[in-house]
Order: sequence, then structure tokens, then C-alpha cells
Amino acid sequence: MARNEEDEAYRCAAALRRALRRFESRCEEIARANGLTSRQYLLLLFIRGSQGGTATVSGLVHDLRLGQSTVTELVQRAEEQGLIVREPSRTDGRVVHLSLSPEGERRLAGAFAELGEERSHLIELVSSL
Amino acid sequence: MARNEEDEAYRCAAALRRALRRFESRCEEIARANGLTSRQYLLLLFIRGSQGGTATVSGLVHDLRLGQSTVTELVQRAEEQGLIVREPSRTDGRVVHLSLSPEGERRLAGAFAELGEERSHLIELVSSL
Repeated sequence: MARNEEDEAYRCAAALRRALRRFESRCEEIARANGLTSRQYLLLLFIRGSQGGTATVSGLVHDLRLGQSTVTELVQRAEEQGLIVREPSRTDGRVVHLSLSPEGERRLAGAFAELGEERSHLIELVSSL
Repeated sequence: MARNEEDEAYRCAAALRRALRRFESRCEEIARANGLTSRQYLLLLFIRGSQGGTATVSGLVHDLRLGQSTVTELVQRAEEQGLIVREPSRTDGRVVHLSLSPEGERRLAGAFAELGEERSHLIELVSSL
């Protein structure tokens, strides 16, 4: 690659990462303002954004890219805080379906709405790269 | 918002976050395989992607969205590991310009090339949202 092209490729990748850092940092602030950690926000979003609004721990392990025990703990804490509810699967007793409680739904909706502008901004910027 | 539209908005935002988590997680693996932490990778990328391939600590504080002392420490460790070099500004003695050493350039280039496919994948996916 010519030096100029190389410079441009690095500039472009740096612009992407700058946008991602900004998004994450705003997400953290907004989640906190809505009574959530940014991990809890992601947990609630992944549950709510799943088919039928319910998810399993193994689905969340994949989405969150965290270890099984970290996710189990995260789910347990969110349940204790009244943000999510568990319901055993009707077809497989070993599987538990997780969904949002009204309070979880309320906090997610608040953070989600506030983050809307940042999300659009990020999508627009990334699409222009 | 109608329930259906709301479901779709959450699904779309979850897809974005899933893509971002995947990207971060691949970045971590690839950085490590090239002898860098993912923070060091970002540090080198932000320096290399800056105008003239040099950056200042305050510019990096903005880009990395980390505190001044965290960035100072990160820079110091990278310097000790021979990844970056400092040069005092010719116009302002209080300002130090940071740039990559040949070794820093080599490791960044390795990780950067390996991450190329993931970056394209991310940009494509986000652009389709």
C-alpha cells in the first residue's frame, strides 16, 4: 500500500474507533442516569431485542461475549433488583426464559430513548466510512 | 410507538450492539496475538491515525475517553516497551509529540491488517441498519 493510502486507512479506522468510544461513553452515562450499569443496559436490550422478548442464559452468553458464570451472576443481580423475571420453559424444564419486568422495561425504555440520537449519529458516521 | 415498531427498534439496536461486542472481542484477540492489549492497540491506532502520525496526551485523552492519569500511564508503559517515542514540540516546550517506533508500527500494522475483515464486516452491518 502506498504511504498515502496507508495514512488514509489508519485515519478512517481511528475515526471509527473514536465514534465507538464516544458511543460507549455516552451509553454509560445515560444508562447510569436511568438506574442501570452499561452492562445491565446491554443485558436488558439483548433480552428485549430477542424473538418474543425472551432470552436464555446461553443466548446472552453469545450476545454479550462474556463467560457463562459472569452472565449468570449478571442475570441473578438483575432479577434481585426486580428488572427481569424467569420462567421455566414449558417444553424443556432445564431451560429458563428471561424477560423484562415492568420496571426493567421502564428503565430500558428511558435509556433507549435518550440514546437514540447517539445511535443515529453512530450509524450515520459509520455508514460514511 | 406501536408495539411492532418498538420491537423492531429494539431488535435493530440489539443487532448493532451484538456487532459491536463481536468487533471488540475479535479486536482483543487479534491485538493480543500481535503482542498488544486492546487498549494499546487503540493507543497506537489513535497516534498513527492523527495528522502527521503524531499525537499529544490531551488529544489521546479526548480520543480514548479515559482520564488524563490513565492515559499518561498507558503512554509511559508503551514507551517503556519501545512502542512509542516522545519528542518535545519545537514551538511549545510544555507539549510532547508522541509517535510510533518502528516496533510499534510493526505490531499495529499486523493487528490492523488482521482486523481488516472484521472492520469491513462491522461497517457493512451498521450501514444496513
